[in-house]
Order: sequence, then structure tokens, then C-alpha cells
Amino acid sequence: MSWQDKLREVEPYVAGEQPKIVNMIKLNTNENPYGPSPKIKEVLTSLDIDRLRLYPNSDAVDLRKELANYYGLEEEQVFLGNGSDEVLALIFLTFFNGKEPILFPDITYSFYPVYCELYQMAYKLVKLDRDFKINLNDFMQPNSGIIFPNPNAPTGLLVDLDFIETILKNNPDSIVVIDEAYIDFGGTSCVSLIDKYDNLVVTQTYSKSRSLAGIRLGIALGSKEAIRHLYDVKNSFNSYPVDYVAQQICLASILDDQDTKAKCAKVIKTREMTKTRLKELGFIVPDSYANFVFVKHPDVEGQELFTALRQVGIIVRHWNTKRIDQYLRISIGTDEEMERMINFLEEYLNK
Amino acid sequence: MSWQDKLREVEPYVAGEQPKIVNMIKLNTNENPYGPSPKIKEVLTSLDIDRLRLYPNSDAVDLRKELANYYGLEEEQVFLGNGSDEVLALIFLTFFNGKEPILFPDITYSFYPVYCELYQMAYKLVKLDRDFKINLNDFMQPNSGIIFPNPNAPTGLLVDLDFIETILKNNPDSIVVIDEAYIDFGGTSCVSLIDKYDNLVVTQTYSKSRSLAGIRLGIALGSKEAIRHLYDVKNSFNSYPVDYVAQQICLASILDDQDTKAKCAKVIKTREMTKTRLKELGFIVPDSYANFVFVKHPDVEGQELFTALRQVGIIVRHWNTKRIDQYLRISIGTDEEMERMINFLEEYLNK
Repeated sequence: MSWQDKLREVEPYVAGEQPKIVNMIKLNTNENPYGPSPKIKEVLTSLDIDRLRLYPNSDAVDLRKELANYYGLEEEQVFLGNGSDEVLALIFLTFFNGKEPILFPDITYSFYPVYCELYQMAYKLVKLDRDFKINLNDFMQPNSGIIFPNPNAPTGLLVDLDFIETILKNNPDSIVVIDEAYIDFGGTSCVSLIDKYDNLVVTQTYSKSRSLAGIRLGIALGSKEAIRHLYDVKNSFNSYPVDYVAQQICLASILDDQDTKAKCAKVIKTREMTKTRLKELGFIVPDSYANFVFVKHPDVEGQELFTALRQVGIIVRHWNTKRIDQYLRISIGTDEEMERMINFLEEYLNK
Repeated sequence: MSWQDKLREVEPYVAGEQPKIVNMIKLNTNENPYGPSPKIKEVLTSLDIDRLRLYPNSDAVDLRKELANYYGLEEEQVFLGNGSDEVLALIFLTFFNGKEPILFPDITYSFYPVYCELYQMAYKLVKLDRDFKINLNDFMQPNSGIIFPNPNAPTGLLVDLDFIETILKNNPDSIVVIDEAYIDFGGTSCVSLIDKYDNLVVTQTYSKSRSLAGIRLGIALGSKEAIRHLYDVKNSFNSYPVDYVAQQICLASILDDQDTKAKCAKVIKTREMTKTRLKELGFIVPDSYANFVFVKHPDVEGQELFTALRQVGIIVRHWNTKRIDQYLRISIGTDEEMERMINFLEEYLNK
């Protein structure tokens, strides 16, 4: 017997790297190429640093109120956490404690199985079809919870609200989590279904469309009852996950929604240009509604392209994982960054 | 069957309230009466808000390096989290998975049993003696882990390093966590024991002595092996718990240690004055080494004093809990705030 015998066995999630390479083009973690609302500058310069000696408001009431207003929900339907990952981690812990397995796609956000192992919860992978589409029937089996991103990561594919509603209707005894990290880049949010289905929990993040990955704000939206249970678990873990400065910054961001919308529109335009150009180079390009594209070339290995790009300082994401090892996930940068990447690929493929 | 059957049953921790009362004297959550290092102002005004679009460094390398330097440890011995509560929550999850109960005092930080219930871990309360002292022998029984604050909360009592070393020696097969949230107010840290005992994990916080409760930084220190396991669990929960702005602010704080030391010295001086004055009023005052005192009056009920203080806008903490329901925990404010509180008590007791 030793203290090592009392450890929790885990295989942690590996986030996309944050390399320090001069002049690199960083297209590996789906960050927004444009900075956040300029109004945040004012928040920081006028902030009373003596206020930092006090704990933040543990429910972030002011921010929560504005978010409720933004989503057309009641305050009690809004949950805030330290980034979407924490929100998801707490959701698994709160809602997915049944005996049946948790269901999610075999190709999806790779943090989901990590949460399951952390909490020693059983899960079952639902196999996407050849085109990476979800087969609706796969979510019609006994389960302790369902989760998938919409649009899905890393494929970028979107399902519509009818699809989600069918899953909700057929799973009244499980919480169904729709992870909308990328919804602002062209999808339709299912927040409108919340008041109809008390088993729906929607998550969103300020790391992508809001350009605030550096700040960590994640959101969960749902029925008052579900959100209350989520707060109970959060309050059994950490009373103050969203700090005072983060609350002020995110408040400035939500109040400058025009800025977000304009930047999302630019990203979408660049994504569509990128899709077109990559198709012209022979790439297979599933129809992404996110701020990334997930592509493969029929003639060149994914690993080879990943390495070639990296050698010229263009960092994308590649997984050595069955079914997707030929693909690259490329975040959408500025027009100029994408041009440089596409031009490099064009030259490389011509060689 | 319903989704409610799949919920995790918890009774959440209740943090001290953050009331909004004009001119109140807030002595209920052990915040520092003095603001943080003035150098933080500069950090905020010069911060490049475009940097916020990127994820923070997930290991907070720059901050971690400075902290290692500060504590005289290797970087790999330093763990950072989103406040001490998150660090503790992750410590329980990482290290306390044995079959025997976890041991901690019956009078202590009330978050410990909450973590145990959250993770469905068994615990056993070790009864403090009449003077709130820990009986060393109580920690000589089979266990899956040991944790207590030093100085203890809410009593403020301190144990010395020999005491801690005896526990470490007698429990080589368990992680022993010493929660040093209040150590900078007069205690001697046991960080010096880390290189001798690989089963020791020490936690500290930036919320008290560093005046940064609003920012949320918690620290764990231990052997490289223990800290690596803690990171594995953290990376199975949330990749980026400490945001970019928090990293920069805490870096400025650690580099201005003189400021912290000066403010701690002031708090200690005020605490000693408070102890003396309260004793003069007939209060029983255990010898606190923290930034609070834990006191009771032989003639007046704790609840009554709590209510009377609150009516004049002086907020302290009181628990309706066996053994301590006659006590008030009073955070140390400025000299002026304490004078006002003591003067009120004096008048009240004379009536």
C-alpha cells in the first residue's frame, strides 16, 4: 500500500499547443483572428484595483442578468463557469450519474471521454456515418445522458433544430447537452427549445465568437430546475469560478454585440473563401459552419501536410486517430493568413 | 425513471455573503482590508486586449516560474488553480480515492465534507479537544488522506512543524494536505518539509495575504510526482483554469512581495490589538495566527451578538453548528473598522 494506490487514474485531455514561434500563423485552437470589443480597454484602465481584495459576486449577478436578457431567458436559467470546459465538466458530474452509458459521437470533442474517465462513468460512442453525419437512431437507445457539439467538432457539420427536437422528445429521462461552442459562425442556436424541453441544456463559450479565450467564460442555459442542480454541484466544487475582472470584461463584451456580429461575419466570409480555394486544390471539404474547416487531400497524407505546414510556421491541428488521421483541422484566421496558407499548399501540392 | 434520477445529490457549501449595505463594515469572509500591490494598476492599463483572443498559457509558465523561485522549489513542484477552493477540490479528486475514510477535524473549513459528498468519498471527523486543539493520535489511524488548515479555520490556532512532521512520518501511505490559506499572518509554512516527505501537499491562496480574492489564484506545492498527478486530473477537468489577466496580475503581486509583507504586518498588529481589547471586554479569545479572531462571550449568545452587529452594519460570521454556535468569527479589518466594532460591543455589553 502507498499513497499512489489512492490516486485517480486518468489520461488527461491534450489541448492544442500554444507554441512560441516567431511570425507563426496559429490556426490550431480555433481562436478568433480578431480581438475582442475595444470597449474592454476602458474596463481595464478604469478598474478600481482595490476592489480586487474582495471576493467576486459568486453568481456574477450583473453579467448573468445581461446574459439572460441577451438569450431571452430568466436569470435562473443561466449558469456561468470558468470556460466552457469547466461548464462541461460540471455538467457531466451533475447530470450523467445513471447506470446506462452516456452517448456521444465517435468523432467529436475529445474532452467528453476524458470527463467520463475522470468520473468513472460509462460511455458509448455513436458512430458517425461515412460523411460524418449523426444517425438519429443511434440516440434512441437507453442512456444516462447525451452530448454532442452543434456544429460538431472537429467536422464543422451542423444539424437542424428538428433533428435536436427529435432527440429531446425521445429522451425525456436524460439530459441532452448541445454544445454550441461554434454556433455563432452560421448555425441556429437551439436555445429557443429550452422552454419546451426541461431536459435540454445548451452550452456556449466566450472563447470563440467573443474573442475572449484568454478570459475563460463558459455558459450553460436550461430549465430553472436543471440550472439549479448545476449550481448546487458548482457550489460543491468552487464558490467563485468567474473572477471579478472576467465578469467586468464579459459584461463589456455582451453589451457590444455589434462588434461580435461584425467579426463573426468576417470569419464566415473568410471560411467560405477558404472552402472554395481548398476545393479548387482538390481537398475534400465537409461543409463547416464553425470557425474552422476539416479537410483532407486524396493524394497526400494528413501527417505529411501537417508537418510541411509546421515547417513554414503554419500551425494547424492533426490527430493520429482512426477515421480522421487523414484530416487537418484548420482554424479560420484573417484573409491574409488563409491566403498564405493556401498559397503554400498550392505550391506544395504542385511539387 | 426521469433525468432527475441521474442527478448527483449534494448539499453545497455556503460561502460568506457579499451583502450590499451602504457603509457596512465587512468582516465576514476574511478578505484583506488593504488593496493589492499598486503595480497591478500598471498591468491593467498596459494590457494588450488583443491578446485576450488567444488561450492563456495553460501551465501559466511565467507565473509558475516566479512562484517556484519564491518558494525555493522546482517549477514542477508548483500547481496553480482557479482559487484555493478549486485546488482543494482537485486534490480530493486526485489523491483521496482509497477505501478508508479521509480524516479532518470536526471543527474546520466546512468545504472539506462538501468535497467528500460531491465525490462520494467516506470521511471521518477527528474531534478537536475542548480548547480546539488537534489530538495528534487521532491522525494515527487508517485513512485515505488527511487534511487540515494551519492555522485552522475558523479557530485560528496553529500547530508547529514538528506536529506536522509527526503526522507525515506516521502516514507515508496517504497524502497529507496542509491548507495554509492563512499562513502569512504569523505562522511558519511547512513548505520546507516538502523535499523530505513526498506525501506532503501544501496549499496556499492569493485571496488573503495577497489581497486578490477578486482574482482567484490558488496554489498547491509538493513533490514533482504528486504535482504531476494533480495536473493530470486538472487536465481532465479544465485545460485553462487561470486566465491570462489573472496570470499577469498575480505575477505583478509576487514580484512586489514587500507590499504584501507590509500589509500582513499591519493586519497582524490590528489582530493583536483586537485580541487584547476583546479580552478586556470579557471575551474568550483563542490565540489566532490568522487574519480573523474566533471569539465568544460567556454572558451573551453568539447569535444575539451576530444579529446586533449586523443591525449596525457590521457583518461577521456565525455558524449554527454544534460546539461553535456561541462563537463569532471576525475578520481583521483596518484599525478604524475594528475600533468601531469594539466600541459597539463595549456599549452593547454595558447595556
